[in-house]
Amino acid sequence: MAELSLHPDRLLPAEPETRAIARRLYAEVKDLPIISPHGHTDPTWFAYNEVFPSATELLLAPDHYIYRMLYSQGIALNDVGVPSKAGPSTADPREAWRTFARNWKLFRGTPSYMWVSHVFSEVFGFTERLSEANADNYFDTINDKLASDAFRPRALFERFNIEALATTESPTDDLRHHKAIRESGWKGKVVTAYRPDPVIDAEHESFQDSLKVFAELSGEDVYSWQGYLAAHRNRRAFFAEMGATSTDHGHPTARTADLPPADAEVLFRTIVSGKATPDQAELFRAQMLTEMARMSVDDGLVMQIHPGSFRNHNHGVFESFGRDKGADIPMGTEYVRALKPLLDRFGNEKNLSVIVFTLDETTYSRELAPLAGHYPVLKLGPAWWFHDSPEGMRRFREMTTETAGFYNTVGFNDDTRAFLSIPARHDVARRIDCGFLGRLVAEHRIEEDEAREVAVDLAYNLPKQAYRL
Amino acid sequence: MAELSLHPDRLLPAEPETRAIARRLYAEVKDLPIISPHGHTDPTWFAYNEVFPSATELLLAPDHYIYRMLYSQGIALNDVGVPSKAGPSTADPREAWRTFARNWKLFRGTPSYMWVSHVFSEVFGFTERLSEANADNYFDTINDKLASDAFRPRALFERFNIEALATTESPTDDLRHHKAIRESGWKGKVVTAYRPDPVIDAEHESFQDSLKVFAELSGEDVYSWQGYLAAHRNRRAFFAEMGATSTDHGHPTARTADLPPADAEVLFRTIVSGKATPDQAELFRAQMLTEMARMSVDDGLVMQIHPGSFRNHNHGVFESFGRDKGADIPMGTEYVRALKPLLDRFGNEKNLSVIVFTLDETTYSRELAPLAGHYPVLKLGPAWWFHDSPEGMRRFREMTTETAGFYNTVGFNDDTRAFLSIPARHDVARRIDCGFLGRLVAEHRIEEDEAREVAVDLAYNLPKQAYRL
Amino acid sequence: MAELSLHPDRLLPAEPETRAIARRLYAEVKDLPIISPHGHTDPTWFAYNEVFPSATELLLAPDHYIYRMLYSQGIALNDVGVPSKAGPSTADPREAWRTFARNWKLFRGTPSYMWVSHVFSEVFGFTERLSEANADNYFDTINDKLASDAFRPRALFERFNIEALATTESPTDDLRHHKAIRESGWKGKVVTAYRPDPVIDAEHESFQDSLKVFAELSGEDVYSWQGYLAAHRNRRAFFAEMGATSTDHGHPTARTADLPPADAEVLFRTIVSGKATPDQAELFRAQMLTEMARMSVDDGLVMQIHPGSFRNHNHGVFESFGRDKGADIPMGTEYVRALKPLLDRFGNEKNLSVIVFTLDETTYSRELAPLAGHYPVLKLGPAWWFHDSPEGMRRFREMTTETAGFYNTVGFNDDTRAFLSIPARHDVARRIDCGFLGRLVAEHRIEEDEAREVAVDLAYNLPKQAYRL
Repeated sequence: MAELSLHPDRLLPAEPETRAIARRLYAEVKDLPIISPHGHTDPTWFAYNEVFPSATELLLAPDHYIYRMLYSQGIALNDVGVPSKAGPSTADPREAWRTFARNWKLFRGTPSYMWVSHVFSEVFGFTERLSEANADNYFDTINDKLASDAFRPRALFERFNIEALATTESPTDDLRHHKAIRESGWKGKVVTAYRPDPVIDAEHESFQDSLKVFAELSGEDVYSWQGYLAAHRNRRAFFAEMGATSTDHGHPTARTADLPPADAEVLFRTIVSGKATPDQAELFRAQMLTEMARMSVDDGLVMQIHPGSFRNHNHGVFESFGRDKGADIPMGTEYVRALKPLLDRFGNEKNLSVIVFTLDETTYSRELAPLAGHYPVLKLGPAWWFHDSPEGMRRFREMTTETAGFYNTVGFNDDTRAFLSIPARHDVARRIDCGFLGRLVAEHRIEEDEAREVAVDLAYNLPKQAYRL
Repeated sequence: MAELSLHPDRLLPAEPETRAIARRLYAEVKDLPIISPHGHTDPTWFAYNEVFPSATELLLAPDHYIYRMLYSQGIALNDVGVPSKAGPSTADPREAWRTFARNWKLFRGTPSYMWVSHVFSEVFGFTERLSEANADNYFDTINDKLASDAFRPRALFERFNIEALATTESPTDDLRHHKAIRESGWKGKVVTAYRPDPVIDAEHESFQDSLKVFAELSGEDVYSWQGYLAAHRNRRAFFAEMGATSTDHGHPTARTADLPPADAEVLFRTIVSGKATPDQAELFRAQMLTEMARMSVDDGLVMQIHPGSFRNHNHGVFESFGRDKGADIPMGTEYVRALKPLLDRFGNEKNLSVIVFTLDETTYSRELAPLAGHYPVLKLGPAWWFHDSPEGMRRFREMTTETAGFYNTVGFNDDTRAFLSIPARHDVARRIDCGFLGRLVAEHRIEEDEAREVAVDLAYNLPKQAYRL
Repeated sequence: MAELSLHPDRLLPAEPETRAIARRLYAEVKDLPIISPHGHTDPTWFAYNEVFPSATELLLAPDHYIYRMLYSQGIALNDVGVPSKAGPSTADPREAWRTFARNWKLFRGTPSYMWVSHVFSEVFGFTERLSEANADNYFDTINDKLASDAFRPRALFERFNIEALATTESPTDDLRHHKAIRESGWKGKVVTAYRPDPVIDAEHESFQDSLKVFAELSGEDVYSWQGYLAAHRNRRAFFAEMGATSTDHGHPTARTADLPPADAEVLFRTIVSGKATPDQAELFRAQMLTEMARMSVDDGLVMQIHPGSFRNHNHGVFESFGRDKGADIPMGTEYVRALKPLLDRFGNEKNLSVIVFTLDETTYSRELAPLAGHYPVLKLGPAWWFHDSPEGMRRFREMTTETAGFYNTVGFNDDTRAFLSIPARHDVARRIDCGFLGRLVAEHRIEEDEAREVAVDLAYNLPKQAYRL
């Protein structure tokens, strides 16, 4: 049996002097509380504090990092517990877990390997590396622990030292679970974020249905342009009441527009008619980013833009399994021309903060660091999704710091629905940042006292300030 | 005289602990047989086993890595032995060699420096670095050795420990040389690969001539759409008989199409009429990638796609010297939309394997690793051509592993026509992979036993499996 | 008080063996004279040798690297001394300096931190790190020193060991200051460079005014196509007389064109009419690059192309403060198709040298190194502007050397208007190049004697040869 143990110096640079510096920096940040200002955990966990289901249902079936890799090697999604449109997976959860264990080697060199090993070791206390031979022991042990009170959501939240955590909801969500959290008397800080894509994106499969709910919940005539905008203001205010400090926008591109009001209204009428062309749908999304910025100037919600994913690329998987099944693929994304209309209008505002993300690493040094290193309203979100990994985070710092510095970035976002991996993900980010800072010190580019201050800012102060938490 | 000696630790990371790990990993793979599943060596060498001509004709004149660098510094192609359309170079081979020797410093920091030094040291036994002063000694020594039996193609093939080697031929090739190899009784495994560009690309200068030969060799009416497809099936079957396990497609872009059959037939008629516009030629290439995938589902040939080269960029050089003269330049290449039609049709097939290459490194982390880390049919080819170099290979691993892992890649391809450099190229790849794995171990991202298994898989098992050799 | 001291090993790799090699290489180049073949210093400094104004006016107000970072964090440009269209900054220079000092931490990890620290330590002799507490001391000390003869422009030029320095002027400049330098008897070599953008770019705000001056100074009818071309030849000849050895072209893209003469003339007439569309303005810029290349074949001026900046991106800042205010943003830039018309015409010329720069790092390995590694007329300019930084320079070498070698690059350009930072910038470049070479030696990719020769070539010989200085 191979041993499983997390080395205390993992992910720090191998060169001994640099590692020694990085280790000292990491000691300053490793126990800081977690600020998780953007993610996709389920608020019902914290509202009702029920025990989590089995290893397969908690760790495999919802983790698209895991099952996309297995799928790429010819393993059927159903066989690792992924539910389809037809219903729950028909696979035996224990068999699904064995399939995962048998294929663990596929994850070598991936961030999932780091995250899952951290969960196995730190959260569940395993000391043997996962293998086909110990798969059943893993499965049973995890299931036993999950059934205990110490592994209920709130207990883990506290054990993980999470100071604040944001989930993400649509304007069509009535936020009853967030209300339940607030009314429960539990002290954990769990807030929502306003993600209006389903009522903005005319190409979203639930657009028309979402509009109906949007009308009901806001009490506005969402089929008129002014009523539609009022509905957004109304729901944003309600989300803010439920703790939201940010909005989030996941569009195919970063395009923004600033149409004359009359043109915007004409466009809106086409959009709600259900007859919009793809170009019109794109233009409306672009216009709405500028409208959202305008509302943020008024209500102070921080605006997040997450562009550049080709959603549901695998036609067959989408047909059988629906969205968010590991088949979203990054595309080249342009920001310089795309953001100009919004920036021309609001780029120099005092009260606006726009955090931009990318799936196109070429834009770090070419477009995003130059933009964020100039415009007062812009900040750079951390390395995202496919790039939320040791090498990806390192590239992010190497390619943005020289032009944007550290103080136009916002610390780390875990952006995950895998609750148990949150400490692992923040730990990876802290280690990589300390390694990068350690190199700057070892190369005499900054002094160690400066690096120490930056390390703490990146781990704690910057996300708290940037998200106004 | 400066010494020439290949350091045993060359290309391994300098940091001592990482180097020690990498050295242990490399010890496990350095003597593994060479699998060369894609390249451009000449089958006549192995068929007839004649002695190679002189140093200039073997090492300079056919190596576009060498003469493109010399040309970039104002040295005429003719002066280093490169034949033109008008006939063989008029330069004295010895003078050409002296010109090369005098300019050896231009290659510092390039992979050619590594490859050629390896050939000089390991294959020919030189112990002095090439210079103007020893150019004649080099020239004479190489020529003497080449005249000996130990330097005939088959002897070198065996000395190089090549287990399998694929060449690349057009459907218009009758494969008589491959037949001669098989009938010779020699045990070396040399197979062909099916590269149909000349009968698919209406913009290829020999397209119409190639169609005629295609008709003769297949016995099909290649001027009808069904006959043309049948001719491909026919020639693919013959290539497979001659050992081929793969096809190869070198298009300007990665575009694929899946036209309704009637539209494909109309397009085909325009193509064979010789009146196709550039857009139609592009659409036909796109359609044919999907047709080739369909045939691969049936006959099991692994499909390689090598897109993104602007061929024959230098107008003057093309006019005087023809194709493949070091004037092919990479272009930005898009995969996410381009591959979708083929993937919509065959992306989840059990029996299909498509290996994708790129000359656009920005697509590694943004497009190709996400695609290969999801689709069962896709694998990533290794760093290619301009990027088939220490830094290029390192970037490939750093930018693909975290999303696609190691097991969605296929080991190394040398892709060369420079036969003597094959061991050098595989050695560079093995060293860089062991260095990358060594860093993962030194940073405690995987354990050394895992790295050891991966190193052997990358060097030997993966290419053998991926190419079904 | 934190200490300020420049570590002798700063910017060299941390790994001790690599650092030892790099240190030996750096010792060979650190005292070589500075060749500054491209930049934006003010010739009046050297012509009249007057004392520099205050710390704020010399070090903050003209340095867009400094004030763009401050602006990005919400600090008004006026508050750090930047003049607007309405006139000089209304801020107290001492208060502006305090604002800068208070925000010094923003620059951690940026090249400005390295450059400014070098100026503080080496030029002014400070031994304490800048902070809010010592801001006044810094301000007073700098101002006192600037008032002394040892800090006049010519004294600094000599102290900096500058062998040759080029400024950049428009054809509409009468070069009286350059004339004054030549007639002054001072031995410093300060030359001009021919930058015709204002008379080529119909979208430049001063295009029509510039044409008038162009006519006056050249004595040609610049409103006819032949007269316009003659005016360029005339002014180029005059610039060459004033020491120019190069031209420079800062276009939005790298596009070139080679129109039939009659079409070029028709296009020209539209351009001077003031009615050109953006596409026509772009086509004319493209055509003029080819015309400039044609003139360079005749007069031997080296041609520099600096494409890819979206100028004046911030509408509000441009309206209030005008151009060059830190709001220029890089764009994706294409070279393979863009340069082909010029290269088809002049790509293989003996007497032409074209130095290409980029703000799009993705083109290093994909387009520029392959082009420069083939075409005799092309050389690669160094890492430019946003990428003129330790990480940026390192990426440049890592991504260009393997395909283009060292000898298709041209050493370093500081490209700065911040005169006091020139030694700092060249020192950073020499250190990074020695670190890169040190790694090649430590990894046994070249020998140390070869690296030593390359280090000297990069620091001194290549810029001198490439710019024909």
